Amino acid sequence: MQIKDNEIHNFHIKNILKKLEEKDLDAMLVANFNNIYYLSGYLSTSFAFMIIKENPIIFVSGMDMENAGNTSSIDIVKYESFDKMIEYLKEENIKSLAIESDLTANVYEKFKDFNLTISNAISTERMIKSHDEIEKMIKATDIAHKSLIELDVRSKQEKGAQEWECAYELGYLMRKNGASAESFDTIFASGPVSSLPHSTPRQHVLETPVLVDYGCKFEGYCSDTTRTFIYTERQEEISDIVLEAHDKAIEAVKAGVKACEVDKVARDIITDYGYGDNYIHSTGHSLGLDIHENPSVSIKDQTVLENNMVITIEPGIYLEGEFGIRIEDMVLVDKKGKLIGNLPQIL
Amino acid sequence: MQIKDNEIHNFHIKNILKKLEEKDLDAMLVANFNNIYYLSGYLSTSFAFMIIKENPIIFVSGMDMENAGNTSSIDIVKYESFDKMIEYLKEENIKSLAIESDLTANVYEKFKDFNLTISNAISTERMIKSHDEIEKMIKATDIAHKSLIELDVRSKQEKGAQEWECAYELGYLMRKNGASAESFDTIFASGPVSSLPHSTPRQHVLETPVLVDYGCKFEGYCSDTTRTFIYTERQEEISDIVLEAHDKAIEAVKAGVKACEVDKVARDIITDYGYGDNYIHSTGHSLGLDIHENPSVSIKDQTVLENNMVITIEPGIYLEGEFGIRIEDMVLVDKKGKLIGNLPQIL
Repeated sequence: MQIKDNEIHNFHIKNILKKLEEKDLDAMLVANFNNIYYLSGYLSTSFAFMIIKENPIIFVSGMDMENAGNTSSIDIVKYESFDKMIEYLKEENIKSLAIESDLTANVYEKFKDFNLTISNAISTERMIKSHDEIEKMIKATDIAHKSLIELDVRSKQEKGAQEWECAYELGYLMRKNGASAESFDTIFASGPVSSLPHSTPRQHVLETPVLVDYGCKFEGYCSDTTRTFIYTERQEEISDIVLEAHDKAIEAVKAGVKACEVDKVARDIITDYGYGDNYIHSTGHSLGLDIHENPSVSIKDQTVLENNMVITIEPGIYLEGEFGIRIEDMVLVDKKGKLIGNLPQIL
Repeated sequence: MQIKDNEIHNFHIKNILKKLEEKDLDAMLVANFNNIYYLSGYLSTSFAFMIIKENPIIFVSGMDMENAGNTSSIDIVKYESFDKMIEYLKEENIKSLAIESDLTANVYEKFKDFNLTISNAISTERMIKSHDEIEKMIKATDIAHKSLIELDVRSKQEKGAQEWECAYELGYLMRKNGASAESFDTIFASGPVSSLPHSTPRQHVLETPVLVDYGCKFEGYCSDTTRTFIYTERQEEISDIVLEAHDKAIEAVKAGVKACEVDKVARDIITDYGYGDNYIHSTGHSLGLDIHENPSVSIKDQTVLENNMVITIEPGIYLEGEFGIRIEDMVLVDKKGKLIGNLPQIL
């Protein structure tokens, strides 16, 4: 098992080294926990810095040494100070250093003496999922879908349950069914607050409609699903438009199409029905170890979709002060887009 | 209520402007969600950029405009693009720009044409808590302590409960008792994994000892407590040392003392007993809206403690492969350190 993991890590590291070489970069400084996990199997709980070069190494916080020693396929060394790390890089004759786009300013400035270049080498590598990664995301989705059915939102609504209780019970069910955690804070928004795309669950009984945007992690990999439980004709009317945008956008997903073209399909439908101004976010995003990865399915993202990318399709219409409807599924990019999971869109 | 909030925000903003002026900085770019919340009352769910200047303004993501409009005491404008923001800053004749230490590299590079300086003006402002902030943290602690008692860890251990179930039930109880969320992922580590300071709850029945490091948020403010439930003489022996370090460090807390001096009290005791190498982290940290704030209570932090700072004291001894013991409480800095909450250290 460890040997196989090593092989996967080495495969990715080689690809990244090749990308660095093409840009004349000597090495890459990696601080993002999921990037380090992706390339080594070690998930930091405090801080860590990986140096990608011919013989990669990870500087690990003292309190994480036992954990890193047990899990990393890459050599580890105890982090002492930035000065020591900089000394090491100089000894290794590293002059130009790739960095991640989310490196923090304080670390950025510590390494200013190197020629720093933001590189998307790792995020690009992470765009195409392996069979194993896809299996984990399908499993996460199955757990999430099973759990939403078990929760039985309509019965909760009838019983006068509160938003936070439902969100919490859904989290419990996902763990009971094998998830390690939520993939992000569950959105359980009912009544007027459903028009806030990122509403926080309230200590308030469920009104209608009930919008549930949620997911879980299975072995590090995320799922992401939204269902809106509708109760009135007006809600159904809006839901029908969102569902049409959802279905047509999924039909438009295939390898070779640009992400922005998929966004356009959903956006055009909603706009044609007169709700363009009420569609206030992108049509979707990639996901994997992180809930938001590249590419996004947005007006601006020109990335050409490739086989084994995994994206969400999640159009919505938000009527301020009234309600919001969103329907979201995950789609595996292939010759045709393959819907992940089989939870009905209307529940 | 809104007027009072405005006053608090304006008070903090004036203090920050003064600090910027002392360093000849024209304005500050703020991207950290909690910093923006602290200064405006608006908590972003996607992204936002605040510009602190004479007339501060927040650039808000389209999907957050309704929420920001309802909650911000500072003027908001819809974010269009970095180019538009840069244009705005130039129109305002801003040349030198303070930034936060955790600003991401991609944003850092967008604003490179300005004279960028990392400033701790906001984190310094946040170090001294107001009466209102302290009240919220005391309330968060009371909720957390009450919930741990209700959970009854010893009975869970006898019944063969699993780590994740206990962590999850504790989260439920904290919410039931009025918390909005955990302040960080609960650590519920038993048996040998208690020697990993940041262990993740496992699908595994509780062994001994049981280390619980947890907290909740009340109106945005964090609590942080650790208790270790001990079962053997060996565990008691180690626990006694940790408790002595904990108690003496709390006695050492008072306004005018350096943070590193408090760390030294705990570290010296543990070292004198021969466990210096098994004390693999700092003695504590400040907290507030974030679970980790400045100053830290560490070997290196020379910050002089001041009235109304809130810090944790959390010494521990970690015996790899055997077990770990940590005892943590929150302390309000005053003429003497005031322990927050009244949960017994040994349960």
